[in-house]
Amino acid sequence: MEKNKVITAKLGIDVGGTDVKFAVIDNGEIVCRSKIPSNRESVEKILQEICDECRKIAEVYPYKSVGAGFPGVIYDGLLNTDNLPFKETPIIEEMENRLGVPVAADNDANCAALGEVLYGSGKAYHNAVVLTLGTGIGGGIIIDNEIFRGRGGAGELGHMVIQSENGLPCACGRTGCFEQYASTRALVRQATEAAKENPDSILGVIYQENEDMNGKLFFEAIHKNCPVAEAVFDHYLDWLSIGIKNLQMIFDPEVFLLAGGVTKEGDNFLKPLMAKLDGKINVKIAELQSDAGVFGAASLN
Amino acid sequence: MEKNKVITAKLGIDVGGTDVKFAVIDNGEIVCRSKIPSNRESVEKILQEICDECRKIAEVYPYKSVGAGFPGVIYDGLLNTDNLPFKETPIIEEMENRLGVPVAADNDANCAALGEVLYGSGKAYHNAVVLTLGTGIGGGIIIDNEIFRGRGGAGELGHMVIQSENGLPCACGRTGCFEQYASTRALVRQATEAAKENPDSILGVIYQENEDMNGKLFFEAIHKNCPVAEAVFDHYLDWLSIGIKNLQMIFDPEVFLLAGGVTKEGDNFLKPLMAKLDGKINVKIAELQSDAGVFGAASLN
Repeated sequence: MEKNKVITAKLGIDVGGTDVKFAVIDNGEIVCRSKIPSNRESVEKILQEICDECRKIAEVYPYKSVGAGFPGVIYDGLLNTDNLPFKETPIIEEMENRLGVPVAADNDANCAALGEVLYGSGKAYHNAVVLTLGTGIGGGIIIDNEIFRGRGGAGELGHMVIQSENGLPCACGRTGCFEQYASTRALVRQATEAAKENPDSILGVIYQENEDMNGKLFFEAIHKNCPVAEAVFDHYLDWLSIGIKNLQMIFDPEVFLLAGGVTKEGDNFLKPLMAKLDGKINVKIAELQSDAGVFGAASLN
Repeated sequence: MEKNKVITAKLGIDVGGTDVKFAVIDNGEIVCRSKIPSNRESVEKILQEICDECRKIAEVYPYKSVGAGFPGVIYDGLLNTDNLPFKETPIIEEMENRLGVPVAADNDANCAALGEVLYGSGKAYHNAVVLTLGTGIGGGIIIDNEIFRGRGGAGELGHMVIQSENGLPCACGRTGCFEQYASTRALVRQATEAAKENPDSILGVIYQENEDMNGKLFFEAIHKNCPVAEAVFDHYLDWLSIGIKNLQMIFDPEVFLLAGGVTKEGDNFLKPLMAKLDGKINVKIAELQSDAGVFGAASLN
């Protein structure tokens, strides 16, 4: 006799370069989740596979709407991506036609920012700047609990130039972009350079033994009090704090939320960062981390 | 028989370090204006003189509300200024008690930005970033025709660091701030240095003849096709365009509005700047210039 049961659940999709994550959110919780590999062949293929998965999920847990985050920019409803084949794709229309429920779409960093503010460590706030320190720096600006988009492309915080002269080149074509200095990838690069220059240091030895460098190995050296690693980290935090202070001057937000690789170190990361920032600047580490995207996507409509 | 005539006029006040400007705005036009020197002695003195002038104006042209822009920051209704003696002054309360009409107050750069968007060259837009290139760089962010304030201190765009390492020192305590490279004062400093290094250039000769350098003298050299001045200008525009591109990435606004000293050169300034910017970036020179402050202040309530 549940004929007229009202459906409150929403489906959130986080489309990445490697896989596509799906989660049905109901009453603020993930009640059903799945994942498929990202098809990079063609727009048709990837849309077909995403929509097939959406239909399968609907059989298990019906939802009233779909929101999707893509690694790209949507202007006037048209999606363009760098890592996937979308080119001027009318993504919302395409998905609504196939699924028959309301669809919304946005940039993946924007979705992650919204998710973290609505459901994660930003829950107590309505105005936040979210930085995801990964391969690059994904940015999201939340004003009054909504994504700030400008004309559509706002929030590209990783491409704020902080070193105009003699800056490191960036894939975007400019030099000296914030993400070249303060992303997790940048820290790993800085650590690799220091390890090569100081082969006898704890960091250097870890690098040789593992024939690799990553965030985990780097923090292993930090935990062993390696002075070379500490110097790298201190300089890295200088760069990161310069960008955060810039965004403080620009937005004066209630809170900064940091996500991504390096932030998984928790207080070992946050405490030394806070020491470099003015006490008025409120910084928290994201709680939802990689789930923030599906939460935010589901909240788009 | 005009007993019940509805008053629509509003008084706008632009409090500067040198003088205080007053203008009654009615139907989008200045219908009455005046100016008094800024009293720097004490908060009591400056408030008394401002309110005396407000009362005088009310006798000539009655207004329903007052809005004032101050060279400082207002947090929780408390004003702090660098150039004037205000310290934690409950400015709105103080003025309302003295004047008996509703009073609103904000940072002067915010007022100028709002005025320029509502009544000046930003009239066709609702979302703009306004930069006043003067002694420093005053910034104002307008979203949906309103000043974006964050927690109160947002829009300090001149203090966005664009040169982290080996940056020029700024009065704010950081180094490499945008205003150290792209304000009108920065251009004059760059021009002075080049004139001294190249005494035989047209710019050098102008500098020696006038025993001075300013925006007007600099553009005299530009109009005479001085290669030294052109190189200075080109490099200056590089710095300015880096800051504008950063703000484009961050806000993706409908328009950038530029005001202040150098922009008075009009197209001679705008055209070479546009050549350095992506075609998607829309830049206009402010129309109201120094009147923008009173227009914006009057519009605060």
